[in-house]
Amino acid sequence: MSGSGLYRFSSRMARVPDSFLGELFSVSAQPGVISFAGGLPDADLFDVAGIRDAAEEVFNQEGKSALQYTTTDGYLPLRRYIASRYRSRLGLNADPDEIQIVNGSQQCLDLVAKILLNPGDHVLIERPGYLGAIEAFSFYEPVFNPIPTLEDLAGPSTEAIQDLVAQYHPALWYGIPNSQNPSGMTWPVELRREVAELLDGTGTLLYEDDAFGELFFDGRARDPVKRWLSDQTIMTGSFSKTISPGLRCGWIWAPRSVIIEFNRAKQAADLHSNLLSQMILARYLETVDVDQRIREIAQIYGERCQVMEEIIDDDFPSGTSHTCPEGGMFLMVTLPSGVDSMEIFRQGIKQKVAVMPGTPFYVDGGGIDTIRLNFSSANPDQITEGMDRLSMVIRDMG
Amino acid sequence: MSGSGLYRFSSRMARVPDSFLGELFSVSAQPGVISFAGGLPDADLFDVAGIRDAAEEVFNQEGKSALQYTTTDGYLPLRRYIASRYRSRLGLNADPDEIQIVNGSQQCLDLVAKILLNPGDHVLIERPGYLGAIEAFSFYEPVFNPIPTLEDLAGPSTEAIQDLVAQYHPALWYGIPNSQNPSGMTWPVELRREVAELLDGTGTLLYEDDAFGELFFDGRARDPVKRWLSDQTIMTGSFSKTISPGLRCGWIWAPRSVIIEFNRAKQAADLHSNLLSQMILARYLETVDVDQRIREIAQIYGERCQVMEEIIDDDFPSGTSHTCPEGGMFLMVTLPSGVDSMEIFRQGIKQKVAVMPGTPFYVDGGGIDTIRLNFSSANPDQITEGMDRLSMVIRDMG
Repeated sequence: MSGSGLYRFSSRMARVPDSFLGELFSVSAQPGVISFAGGLPDADLFDVAGIRDAAEEVFNQEGKSALQYTTTDGYLPLRRYIASRYRSRLGLNADPDEIQIVNGSQQCLDLVAKILLNPGDHVLIERPGYLGAIEAFSFYEPVFNPIPTLEDLAGPSTEAIQDLVAQYHPALWYGIPNSQNPSGMTWPVELRREVAELLDGTGTLLYEDDAFGELFFDGRARDPVKRWLSDQTIMTGSFSKTISPGLRCGWIWAPRSVIIEFNRAKQAADLHSNLLSQMILARYLETVDVDQRIREIAQIYGERCQVMEEIIDDDFPSGTSHTCPEGGMFLMVTLPSGVDSMEIFRQGIKQKVAVMPGTPFYVDGGGIDTIRLNFSSANPDQITEGMDRLSMVIRDMG
Repeated sequence: MSGSGLYRFSSRMARVPDSFLGELFSVSAQPGVISFAGGLPDADLFDVAGIRDAAEEVFNQEGKSALQYTTTDGYLPLRRYIASRYRSRLGLNADPDEIQIVNGSQQCLDLVAKILLNPGDHVLIERPGYLGAIEAFSFYEPVFNPIPTLEDLAGPSTEAIQDLVAQYHPALWYGIPNSQNPSGMTWPVELRREVAELLDGTGTLLYEDDAFGELFFDGRARDPVKRWLSDQTIMTGSFSKTISPGLRCGWIWAPRSVIIEFNRAKQAADLHSNLLSQMILARYLETVDVDQRIREIAQIYGERCQVMEEIIDDDFPSGTSHTCPEGGMFLMVTLPSGVDSMEIFRQGIKQKVAVMPGTPFYVDGGGIDTIRLNFSSANPDQITEGMDRLSMVIRDMG
């Protein structure tokens, strides 16, 4: 019994980790706080005028359609665009019927878990792993098997994968090969091939979350694991990091047999995604030089990442280490042992700098001496100022 | 094992009824088909220009915010508007913190089931009941207890409610007191009071789905059951039937203890709803005479309902009966016994008229001689033509 005492909540609610993302969001939004805690793209880089013009055209030419109900799978011109971009960027053959639009790729985490997981099923996840995935999956009561991330591999231990797959026959193996959240690491190509080989023919489906694949600082695309494991891989993507998160537009690309079940789940969950946004996006993507825009954003994020890394190297206590991202929006810092990252979070807020403690990313606990830093939302001056504050906080605790 | 044969789907997928809504949508969209099968509002009644202007203002004044991430609960000005409208329309005190925005009220069905239902929990639902609820709830594997709808009560049998609550202690009782989908019936006020009294103090939460409460033909608001059972009622609403479904904007209004859990589920499901749409809606609702617009829409739907009823009375075989809606978008026809509504659906498609067979609305089977007709999406001439075709189909089968 909980709540009013009259009614009770489902037992799965007790399985979901208490998130403090809401708290993070509100403290980060306080005036004067420089936040490295969230995962926001820089709103100053949004093409507001371009998206507004696309919206105006949609209203003027197809307003009634944009405001009406539509089918669950999503707006076909947008699905075609996504499929053709897989061909042009990665040389992969995606069929628009293998792609479904969702409310940001977070929704894929919920719906994939819904169609695949029975309580007690095993799920492999990187250690540290993406918090949004841990939360979404938890509602379906799986057993998480963390796969250690090895720094020399810049990715998960293949030995651990092999052992865990053989021992538990996991339903799902969830990973982020490109600029992982939270570590910022990118799997080298040999590791991708190896993971594909290890999974091939097992009953374990690979969930390849590609939220950051467009944001490599060098502008070069990396081959996804799906290249070598096409029929056994779910891949998800998003316009949130490249165009706008407020439009809530992501997608899943998966074998048709998965898409059919996914579609049933999506229909029951919310009928379909916001059609106006899908039409605005499709129109916008036709008119803008997307590659050029994304290249600029990635370069800017790369410069910010470098500013952040230099301050860590120069000013943080000896014994500190950090990952060296090739893209994305995050890097991870490991502090000298004995430092509690939750305490850094609390003291940081007092000094008006917000960080994300590492512990929630570790399904087995641990990571207490790690913090995740976001380098996309603040500009270089703010990063310098915020990192100076953070450096002080850490030194004061030493 | 299913799909590729390599991986299996969760056992809950076998519990979800095979929907043919997707098929319905595509046959209904075929050229020349007059559809009474769907649940679309008439797009000709959308205020495209007004919504476009609101969008332009949002882009020009708050473009960056509209395109950025936001909090899970939803855009505060929109939640304030919804709360104040409960006060002005119904005289009920709603707090914006008791309201959360979702992607159309269908999403509430999924998330409420997620936070409340364990497999095997009992759920009461009207017989016939809303198909979208049956589908959404089915993923959480409850036992459905259908409550017979009695024509003389114009609503569910209170005797059955009393018995079922005493026997099964259901977690949830889901109903649509205003212009129910599919029956079109509206519970009289005495029935509402009685249902509130029956549930008061039991562990059963009432889910009062109010998708159609604004669409009474006479423009008069009806007291919700929540008036007499406030702490034990979840109420949901939507802008889909009054402003636009493409914006995917609905809401839940529930006690704080429920909202807190709902918020956790919403965050894991898709972080937050489309912010651009929320801001457009909030702006639009400030500038337009909402009451006047909705009154016009409801009057038009009332006229269409009357056209449809008259044709049924005049042209359908004797032994046919139908409900007499006071609002909403649907009425239900009971055909002379021996007529199979699935066959009417199939024959209707050949004659370019689409209807919704009643059976999927009956969780215990049954309803084979019923069809649901939508009167909102076609204009009176189309209704006349379509009902003539339908009348022929039914007579040909007799």
